[in-house]
Amino acid sequence: MRILITGGGGFLGSRLAQALLARDPAAKITLLDVAFPNPPDGRFTAITGDLASPDVFARALPADTDAVFHLAAVVSGGAEADFDLGYHVNLDGTRALLEACRKLAKPPKVVYASSVAAFGGKLPDVLDDTTTPTPQTSYGTQKVIGEYLVADWTRKGMIDGRSLRLPTIVVRPGKPNLAASSFASSIIREPLAGVAVDCPVPDTTGVWILSPRRVVDAFVHAYDLPASAWPTSRVVNLPGITLTVREMIDAMATVAGAEKAKLVRFVPDARIQGIVKTWPVRFRTDKALEMGFKADESFEDAVRQHGNAG
Amino acid sequence: MRILITGGGGFLGSRLAQALLARDPAAKITLLDVAFPNPPDGRFTAITGDLASPDVFARALPADTDAVFHLAAVVSGGAEADFDLGYHVNLDGTRALLEACRKLAKPPKVVYASSVAAFGGKLPDVLDDTTTPTPQTSYGTQKVIGEYLVADWTRKGMIDGRSLRLPTIVVRPGKPNLAASSFASSIIREPLAGVAVDCPVPDTTGVWILSPRRVVDAFVHAYDLPASAWPTSRVVNLPGITLTVREMIDAMATVAGAEKAKLVRFVPDARIQGIVKTWPVRFRTDKALEMGFKADESFEDAVRQHGNAG
Repeated sequence: MRILITGGGGFLGSRLAQALLARDPAAKITLLDVAFPNPPDGRFTAITGDLASPDVFARALPADTDAVFHLAAVVSGGAEADFDLGYHVNLDGTRALLEACRKLAKPPKVVYASSVAAFGGKLPDVLDDTTTPTPQTSYGTQKVIGEYLVADWTRKGMIDGRSLRLPTIVVRPGKPNLAASSFASSIIREPLAGVAVDCPVPDTTGVWILSPRRVVDAFVHAYDLPASAWPTSRVVNLPGITLTVREMIDAMATVAGAEKAKLVRFVPDARIQGIVKTWPVRFRTDKALEMGFKADESFEDAVRQHGNAG
Repeated sequence: MRILITGGGGFLGSRLAQALLARDPAAKITLLDVAFPNPPDGRFTAITGDLASPDVFARALPADTDAVFHLAAVVSGGAEADFDLGYHVNLDGTRALLEACRKLAKPPKVVYASSVAAFGGKLPDVLDDTTTPTPQTSYGTQKVIGEYLVADWTRKGMIDGRSLRLPTIVVRPGKPNLAASSFASSIIREPLAGVAVDCPVPDTTGVWILSPRRVVDAFVHAYDLPASAWPTSRVVNLPGITLTVREMIDAMATVAGAEKAKLVRFVPDARIQGIVKTWPVRFRTDKALEMGFKADESFEDAVRQHGNAG
């Protein structure tokens, strides 16, 4: 079993790599990323490169590759700030990966990380499996286009694709990043570490959430499911839970003490609010639940999960 | 007023050019196409070139261009038969056009010819403005991706985009082409000219139809509408009328005589049927009607329209 994880230097990619190796110690796992802040151990092959550079897949995708987990992307705030970079990596890079998959010995399974940023603008109060994507960011646009490419490459028998629309992943470890959703983790992570943090959105802001452990489970489950379990679009909205920023902070206080909550200051940021306010907050995810994907039991679990991992 | 029409050598592009010049005789209209079977008269500038070739827009899109009508595409059957060519022209070409639009003196209006091939597979009996595109062909996939690009470029203020999902255009003049929908015109056009014709689909096959005159009107109307009339997706399903192949042939008989109907032979073609059976047949087009787009009064009108033009 040979596997490529794009974005394998990132937090989700590296956790996914660990999970895949734990279930199949003989797996040969290559991690591709533009940088490896924490170099992987010797059980993994790390390749540094840009998704859309001409030769990267000649190195990262040997002909006997069985599966690709495509997580690499310029995140929402980054793709909004740098239009060309976003299209270069998120569209051209995805296309280049799919083209490279056509050259493999057999059509690989491709699990593609899409996003609820696919949705935006004037939305129903509760989205469901029939809601049409209307992204209000370039990142969301690029993710939706990637879904359509994955579906068409699959229909043509070039890959066996599976696209997951990820909720906002909370609690992310590490440092804040350019994702507009970065605050959703910072307001938990920083106080848990005893550090004050600015929250750029009002505490009434709703967020559609999945924990890191659950999303890694979802990638593995998406891989395991038979092709017949997927709709022809090959896309599914993952289950999540809905909380307001206030409810998130309260849950943290329940787990870690009321003093922690006082470390969150509200400092409005119009740019972040402008992006986040277009995102969906509530979903019915009947299809995903029927397919066996699972949401978190509670946000307190996600907070404890971060405490235990950190 | 300077206007570019891609696909300007084609039947719709050349009729649109005539219509635009008729309403504004001072307009400078450039026609871009890979070939001009009927070279345009001296009032138009014809440029031969491939949409996705590096320098074509340096020639076809002067900085003072005000509007682009983007009709050029590898048609459905062609894009299905040649996967790479379809993506090259329909995706890379559209992207190259949009990139070139960023270099203009001011954001141009871009009217984009999309298609009901955006829809396919398991569909409701009657589609409406909320139906999510699920294309079952590479052509349909490329058209939907183009819509999302047009919407994102518009959101960023780089163009003022308007996408029209065209029904099957009947009666097309000229010769059969690689479009899987080509039969829908051939079964009328050839008998009207006294020529026998093979119909590759059963006579119970439904088709969602708009006449050439109405679609040219729709392009002009899409151009004329204020930006505020458009949804943020900038996409609309054009109105049409639904007929079975049998009803189309009967209408031709009504207009031109029963003998004509006998010139249609049914010769099943599995490849064509495989594409056509995934297409939608019935729509509610409330949004388009509210915006002032119009369907044909009857199919007999479309048959007479062809007779008069020919």
